[in-house]
Amino acid sequence: MWRGILHHYKKLLPPIEDRYIVTLLEGNTPLIPALRLVQYLKIDVKLYLKYEGLNPTGSFKDRGMTFAVSKALESGHRAILCASTGNTSASAAAYAAKAGIEAFVVIPQGKIARGKLCQAMIHGAKVVQIRGGFDEALKIVRKIVEDHPMVLVNSINPFRLEGQKTAAFEICDALGDAPDYHFIPVGNAGNITAYWRGYQEYQKLKKVTRSPKMHGYEAEGAAPIVKGHPIIDPQTVASAIRIGNPASWKAAETARDESKGVIDSVTDSEILEAYRWLANLEGVFCEPASAASVAGFVKCCKKKIFRGEETVVCTLTGHGLKDPDTAIQNSPEPVTVDAELEAVLKVLKL
Amino acid sequence: MWRGILHHYKKLLPPIEDRYIVTLLEGNTPLIPALRLVQYLKIDVKLYLKYEGLNPTGSFKDRGMTFAVSKALESGHRAILCASTGNTSASAAAYAAKAGIEAFVVIPQGKIARGKLCQAMIHGAKVVQIRGGFDEALKIVRKIVEDHPMVLVNSINPFRLEGQKTAAFEICDALGDAPDYHFIPVGNAGNITAYWRGYQEYQKLKKVTRSPKMHGYEAEGAAPIVKGHPIIDPQTVASAIRIGNPASWKAAETARDESKGVIDSVTDSEILEAYRWLANLEGVFCEPASAASVAGFVKCCKKKIFRGEETVVCTLTGHGLKDPDTAIQNSPEPVTVDAELEAVLKVLKL
Repeated sequence: MWRGILHHYKKLLPPIEDRYIVTLLEGNTPLIPALRLVQYLKIDVKLYLKYEGLNPTGSFKDRGMTFAVSKALESGHRAILCASTGNTSASAAAYAAKAGIEAFVVIPQGKIARGKLCQAMIHGAKVVQIRGGFDEALKIVRKIVEDHPMVLVNSINPFRLEGQKTAAFEICDALGDAPDYHFIPVGNAGNITAYWRGYQEYQKLKKVTRSPKMHGYEAEGAAPIVKGHPIIDPQTVASAIRIGNPASWKAAETARDESKGVIDSVTDSEILEAYRWLANLEGVFCEPASAASVAGFVKCCKKKIFRGEETVVCTLTGHGLKDPDTAIQNSPEPVTVDAELEAVLKVLKL
Repeated sequence: MWRGILHHYKKLLPPIEDRYIVTLLEGNTPLIPALRLVQYLKIDVKLYLKYEGLNPTGSFKDRGMTFAVSKALESGHRAILCASTGNTSASAAAYAAKAGIEAFVVIPQGKIARGKLCQAMIHGAKVVQIRGGFDEALKIVRKIVEDHPMVLVNSINPFRLEGQKTAAFEICDALGDAPDYHFIPVGNAGNITAYWRGYQEYQKLKKVTRSPKMHGYEAEGAAPIVKGHPIIDPQTVASAIRIGNPASWKAAETARDESKGVIDSVTDSEILEAYRWLANLEGVFCEPASAASVAGFVKCCKKKIFRGEETVVCTLTGHGLKDPDTAIQNSPEPVTVDAELEAVLKVLKL
């Protein structure tokens, strides 16, 4: 019986007493072979999708949140706080509910996908929307914790990245070694940092023979690391990575440099193309930001960086159901007819 | 590495050649202990939630769809067809995409939750909405397959229930034996039939010592089995079980009778209460129909049917993200303020 990442990888994580562990049995997500996509792209690599949308709240954030909330309990706190583009707040709200403590959430108004907003609300978090972006929300919550007895559960909380590194462990456990390349979306830059740490630790423990080249992808309109300066008003359809001043900026650059990897950007149209390909060719529905990893992979295919037979993993950070509106906007409108056989056959062209 | 239910339970399922298997690595879903809910209800049972919302398309339908679509390929078909209240069409569309074949979908107009509709569309199914209910849609697709070379993948397809029975296997594998009681929503009545078959087969194989009492719950406005006659215009907030003439009616009654169980109904307000409790107390977000199982459990707690220490499993059939609108309607509206510390503190009452 799967008992969540804190139990499963206990020996590889900072200590936490069992009685404080708050878990929704996160982790243990599928690593899906993407055969039709590589056929379509006419590229000779073994491509896998790490489908993090199948975590309990629909995103990879749960891996870090189980640890951050458990540690909050261990230290005697009864409230957590975060800024969020949506996934962090959904996860924080759910784990706070499971723990029986309060969650406070600050989000940018009108820039949170519908599914994510409804999650924070239904799990009973205290939500406030600000007229501003994620970076301003993060500044505000950093100030709040200075004067209030609550734990900040953004990725600057060290237990968040410790939890998130378990996704790299799972990939290595499933493949029997690390992949040659790992592609991942970059927003606040915590996840690329966490994966790199996970791969490095597994290599040091000799559980794998190597670590992958880390390929991180920002959205072109929200690409501070690529451009080398913070972006004041970041813009992209990929709302989960609409961040102009990433908290883990330097650590992400270290991951890139140590792994001989790349941090690059992809356009919204490249992101949406990858998003549709995943849904149409692989039957995998992810949120737009997730598709940045696959858009980056496609960009590398065009640049012909692969020699053949490499193993490549793309992380899909969140489920497509997080953002139904983008899916509807990217699909034809369904036709409505009377409940009669002939009318139905005509629309289906049968 | 988890390879999906057809590989994992191969010996317990009808034969299928490996080369035809179409999988998104469905199954292997968490069985979450619900400690706070039983505390809140002051009831002395071991309650577990089988969280089927963590299947690839967000519902239990994937367990059956992997089998139905694989069998469609094996028999040389290049198209599948279904009627749906939403979850079946989402699953059919995704697995058809993965298989590279066509999916045709007939759904009741205006009665499909937002998330489900967007899934069928983004995965490229041919969708037609009818001015009518699910039961009429099912009649129409039954007629269509008489004259067209496509496979019907509703639960009358025998491989659907064969796949779905694996959820019972997983529960037994996780607990080490079958539970005393199994609570489950009832719509088209295929799932209660499939679980019962799974439990019975495990008992015959002596993998467990017993089978549970099966407790199925219809929504009060869509309760044909409870009322003993088809419902012409079924009504309930639980759109996934808004069905007036279930295809597996008799098999569900058999499951009830053989297991010494119950098929009863719960009101929409009982369903929504259970839905909010799950989100608020357990951090588990399910679609409204899923909460019918827990609403049924609560009803039984009030009737004092438990003597103490029984093991009880409730199936949560789909993820809450399938239906964001119901979540938003059941939550307070978030307040919006300027991006300033004082304004945020005031709203959060800090």
